[in-house]
Amino acid sequence: MHLTGFMLFSPAPHTQLSWVYPPEKIRYQWHEVEYWEEIARTLEEGLFDAFFFADAWGGGDRTAIRWAIQFPRHDPLVLIPRLSAVTERLGFAVTMSTTFYPPYMLARKLATLDHITKGRIGWNVVTSINDSEARNFGVELPPHDERYDRADEYLELVDALWGSWEPDAVVMDMEAKVFADPDKVHRIDFAGRWYSSTGPLNVIPSPQGRPVIFQAGSSERGREFAAQWADCVFAVGGTPKRCLAFRNDLEERMQRRGRDPAALQIINFCGPVVARTQAEAEALAAEISERIPAEAAIANMSGHWNMDLTALPPDTRLSALGEIEGTRGMVEAFQATGDPTLAEVARSYLNMASQEAFVGTPEKVADTLQDLFENGGVDGFQFSPQWYAPDYYRDIVDLLIPELRNRGLVRDRYTGVTLRQHLSQTAAD
Amino acid sequence: MHLTGFMLFSPAPHTQLSWVYPPEKIRYQWHEVEYWEEIARTLEEGLFDAFFFADAWGGGDRTAIRWAIQFPRHDPLVLIPRLSAVTERLGFAVTMSTTFYPPYMLARKLATLDHITKGRIGWNVVTSINDSEARNFGVELPPHDERYDRADEYLELVDALWGSWEPDAVVMDMEAKVFADPDKVHRIDFAGRWYSSTGPLNVIPSPQGRPVIFQAGSSERGREFAAQWADCVFAVGGTPKRCLAFRNDLEERMQRRGRDPAALQIINFCGPVVARTQAEAEALAAEISERIPAEAAIANMSGHWNMDLTALPPDTRLSALGEIEGTRGMVEAFQATGDPTLAEVARSYLNMASQEAFVGTPEKVADTLQDLFENGGVDGFQFSPQWYAPDYYRDIVDLLIPELRNRGLVRDRYTGVTLRQHLSQTAAD
Repeated sequence: MHLTGFMLFSPAPHTQLSWVYPPEKIRYQWHEVEYWEEIARTLEEGLFDAFFFADAWGGGDRTAIRWAIQFPRHDPLVLIPRLSAVTERLGFAVTMSTTFYPPYMLARKLATLDHITKGRIGWNVVTSINDSEARNFGVELPPHDERYDRADEYLELVDALWGSWEPDAVVMDMEAKVFADPDKVHRIDFAGRWYSSTGPLNVIPSPQGRPVIFQAGSSERGREFAAQWADCVFAVGGTPKRCLAFRNDLEERMQRRGRDPAALQIINFCGPVVARTQAEAEALAAEISERIPAEAAIANMSGHWNMDLTALPPDTRLSALGEIEGTRGMVEAFQATGDPTLAEVARSYLNMASQEAFVGTPEKVADTLQDLFENGGVDGFQFSPQWYAPDYYRDIVDLLIPELRNRGLVRDRYTGVTLRQHLSQTAAD
Repeated sequence: MHLTGFMLFSPAPHTQLSWVYPPEKIRYQWHEVEYWEEIARTLEEGLFDAFFFADAWGGGDRTAIRWAIQFPRHDPLVLIPRLSAVTERLGFAVTMSTTFYPPYMLARKLATLDHITKGRIGWNVVTSINDSEARNFGVELPPHDERYDRADEYLELVDALWGSWEPDAVVMDMEAKVFADPDKVHRIDFAGRWYSSTGPLNVIPSPQGRPVIFQAGSSERGREFAAQWADCVFAVGGTPKRCLAFRNDLEERMQRRGRDPAALQIINFCGPVVARTQAEAEALAAEISERIPAEAAIANMSGHWNMDLTALPPDTRLSALGEIEGTRGMVEAFQATGDPTLAEVARSYLNMASQEAFVGTPEKVADTLQDLFENGGVDGFQFSPQWYAPDYYRDIVDLLIPELRNRGLVRDRYTGVTLRQHLSQTAAD
């Protein structure tokens, strides 16, 4: 079972108002690097595969500012190198948009990061969905499917850049004063429909060669993209049956491309509320759910779904919103429960404290995860903190991980060094 | 006297083949983070103001690959956070191009870095001069002066983003559950000729508010830009008289804008070869100069001047090259020596080991620097390593800095915490 820890470089990840916490328990605030160092050390202690950073470039309306809904959001790319200094094996995955990063820039930053982290970097590929991001860049977003067509071309280009140095090109012969063999460093002269670059990349081959590729889109076009490029796909979840259908669908798409389905890890989003007793966990979950104002949850949905829902009456039905392009998996999960109102959706939107099976003792939550792992074709879990993040992860590592380890479901040591090695570590290793 | 340490994240900064060094003396190679950590610690021990990273996005022809001429070149932006972990006061300045970074992206990265370094970040503004960079991004460079017109607009935009949060906007009131006051976080709705962005920035006010602005262009248009925006300007140097003329020119331009000339620091490029005895220093300088192949030096000039000089006969006269737009200060300095050939220029191009006044004992080199400081209106020096960088800086800090300190020319402690405070620290502090 592979584990990743989800965060935004912000006051709160997905759970609205998770930054509200008894002040006397707060050691560091989210904008201080020590807060992140503590989380990174905790995840490494728990032998997580990676520390995952979501990211986006927009937001900032009045509601978001008031409640800190995915805003502010600092740049995770320049935080990760700092966290690599206090960890030795933990991987890092960073979200970067193919819409806003020029490909040569992205390829170079990730290759450099792979050197700095000594092979521990992954890239979560997003195409960006939010108009407020586009407005910050003074551009308009291409339509959804075209963004993926562009992303395909983008990946071809950055892949070519990462391959522009042959693995043995660097010689550094002090005697002959030859740095590298010019016959083994190649221009790529890529000229696509949307992107072009001559290369070669100005970074020597990095420990992993290329970063591990993460992806999370669940649309038809997003799945095609994942089947082509992803090493690891994030899924929203649901029942084991629903998870298995998702896996089967992705595997078929991979096979059609001649890719080995075993090369893909599917990681489910989760955010369990774990405590020593069931009563304690339920009290905590109730407190979390109560704290979330519907207004804040609706603002969060607005950002993810790229629709301003804040002006609509809270009793608006989901069906009245028409086509929602953003985070299809989530929308579908809500639609499957009937045709709820915005207020009803808001109550449970990304609020894992509202999901009974994820609230309880270590044994109970381990049962839930084990069921998805064994019967849902799920390879692992992406945790999202439900309260002050350093303490949330502390509890997961102190309470839940030992239970998973007792069951032989998670590693008891890192056998590899790079993130790619962690993700391919199996129970047999 | 303010001191900065110049590097590229590459095998060699300006001095060709400075990566060639007795293998038994090499502790870490340039692509390993430990190499950089050692330099950063050494600069902090020497109480330097900042560790400075030049940068560019191009290069990579056969000659450059063979000799490692400004290529490869990894991304310094993701190295600096790592170096901030092993230092407490040392500032960092990073080169970022207004041509290749979207303004919102740059503003956010630098503001985040200012948080991560706790107020120790500076930005060296460049507009990019090299066609090979543009080709990597699939674009064409605008003409020289238009690049500066764009840069002016760019600075206006990022300055507005950095000001989009009022200093006291963040409340983080746990009781009332208010993160920030929406009345104190503003959209900027910037719509310029080349750039637009709505804002607000998604980063809360950082320790310095905005990064320290460095600039190095010496053209007419570059000076106008510096007079408008720069906190610190890098100059190529020359005689005290020539330096003073440069200072007077910049001061006049600042006064015309109503800016206080005292707000600007002028830092001269240098790379002394210092040893305990004059004979030792001269032997070292001779060894360095001898090692540099004309072919490598000409390739280096080609990159800086954005002209392919490698195909020309080595006896081509400078005057035959026509207008050279790139690094005017350097070109002028060579023109002032007559009309040398490419081979002659190559011998001394950015090779400080060839400059008699910068080769010698600590006393002699301190005399040279003191003269420029006292009679040339120069506020400090940017050092560029002439050999394996960790050892080069070790020698500067062990040999030259104590001599400068004995003369009361450099600080004996940091009185401030931020880079801006370091640069405004005076002898009286």
